[in-house]
Amino acid sequence: MTQPDWIAAECGPTQLRLWQMAADDGVLDQASLPPVDAAGLAQAVASAWPDLPDATPVVVSGAGALPYPAVPCKPAGIAQATEQGRMRLLPGLAQEKPADTLEHEATRVAGFLAINPGFDGVICLPGAQSRWVHVSAGEIVSFRSFLTGRLHALLADASLVGFDSNAPWDEAPGLEAVDQAMGRPANFAGDLAAIAAEVRLRGLAAGPASARALGLLIGLELAAAKPYWLGQSVALVADGAEAQPYRAALEAQAVPVVVADGIRMAREGLRAAYRGGAA
Amino acid sequence: MTQPDWIAAECGPTQLRLWQMAADDGVLDQASLPPVDAAGLAQAVASAWPDLPDATPVVVSGAGALPYPAVPCKPAGIAQATEQGRMRLLPGLAQEKPADTLEHEATRVAGFLAINPGFDGVICLPGAQSRWVHVSAGEIVSFRSFLTGRLHALLADASLVGFDSNAPWDEAPGLEAVDQAMGRPANFAGDLAAIAAEVRLRGLAAGPASARALGLLIGLELAAAKPYWLGQSVALVADGAEAQPYRAALEAQAVPVVVADGIRMAREGLRAAYRGGAA
Repeated sequence: MTQPDWIAAECGPTQLRLWQMAADDGVLDQASLPPVDAAGLAQAVASAWPDLPDATPVVVSGAGALPYPAVPCKPAGIAQATEQGRMRLLPGLAQEKPADTLEHEATRVAGFLAINPGFDGVICLPGAQSRWVHVSAGEIVSFRSFLTGRLHALLADASLVGFDSNAPWDEAPGLEAVDQAMGRPANFAGDLAAIAAEVRLRGLAAGPASARALGLLIGLELAAAKPYWLGQSVALVADGAEAQPYRAALEAQAVPVVVADGIRMAREGLRAAYRGGAA
Repeated sequence: MTQPDWIAAECGPTQLRLWQMAADDGVLDQASLPPVDAAGLAQAVASAWPDLPDATPVVVSGAGALPYPAVPCKPAGIAQATEQGRMRLLPGLAQEKPADTLEHEATRVAGFLAINPGFDGVICLPGAQSRWVHVSAGEIVSFRSFLTGRLHALLADASLVGFDSNAPWDEAPGLEAVDQAMGRPANFAGDLAAIAAEVRLRGLAAGPASARALGLLIGLELAAAKPYWLGQSVALVADGAEAQPYRAALEAQAVPVVVADGIRMAREGLRAAYRGGAA
């Protein structure tokens, strides 16, 4: 079996993704593990691939390695990484006002810019925390975070409005809820209570209940992020099924959307950093 | 020891409250237990007071006993209760549009009306689900629910923005957040992310973080419930510390507020039903 040249690793909030990378940056193998912090990384890599030679470097995004460069700036390269054994921990990015950070998302943005070097505009990264990132002239200018994904997962876990987190996106009720929340955002906690009541009293199914709750959250987010997307085209950097609700909601606002696979952008960002070509 | 004439019981979402009531409706003893549904009631009462004579009637609110009378109507009396052994389960109230129910809150409203028989106006009941109830001529005309308390507890349990549910209300940051959410309600998920970032990056303490999150939720609620309170006086029927955030937020909007103890109103509502004097 071919030994990898290096390992790419992304510490995300819900999982740790690992790739064995060949000398030509092809993927030899991959693994997904429960999330870890920087202290747990070495053990997690060893548990995935016990026979990996000790010297193989591991390039890691999202492990919280300080200091974070402050925006506006280019995404961090390998020169700004913290060495920890064979680990090369890429920092996130910090913003002074409003106080905020990009974690693994900073490297996904770097990956998108490595593939689209002339890109100027807005990148939206849905996820546990969704991020809206304004990019200009190769620099990350500013960004904003929304707890949309975390809130939706919380509502599901708590069975608060009668659905679980495995319910797939149901577009018609979802988009209706986006509209509802954009039009009357203050109704959020009341609209949630109404969904819960319809589940209880009228047997509303888990699919539309989940989509309506997510639609409300995305509607709030779009209303608040309007300065980011109004009159812009938006690049969605998203994992699989996370793209569609945002794409549909933005297209309903007549915003042109291009979608890039978030997991591939994570790997491309790590590659760009490792090969010295970030940004 | 005096044997009780009857037992008053409230099935709330977070606890079951029980009172041993004397023939003159004085309280002989009381107990708080984990929440139960109708099926678990008899055992819960027996666990609290094993020596209670079998014949002692137990009058119960909030146990979900169907059918629910539909508003507009007076609060349900004992004649509408479901008998289940020695239990007399008072129904909640239903609303057709928007689909919604009042559970144990219906009996608290009945208690408030038993003590304030001429009351005409708006009753706000903070709690896991907060309720705004419009009362006129002794009838409950309409109501709306908000998941404010549940959402705040979820945020605390998930450590989503860096506080736990025991953090006390901190008025200055709390009221600032009420204003913030009333002014820009769509920013909710972004404002939460900002609180989380300030906890992480600037050491914002649990007290103000919790108060800001609750303030945002109350601000959303007040913005959406404005048709209920604008130009009205509001009666707050609330348990202990739940009253103050709502009182402060409403008074900041120049709304006159009277506060009634929620637990006492629960007992008064059960008494009014048992004695045939509901509404």
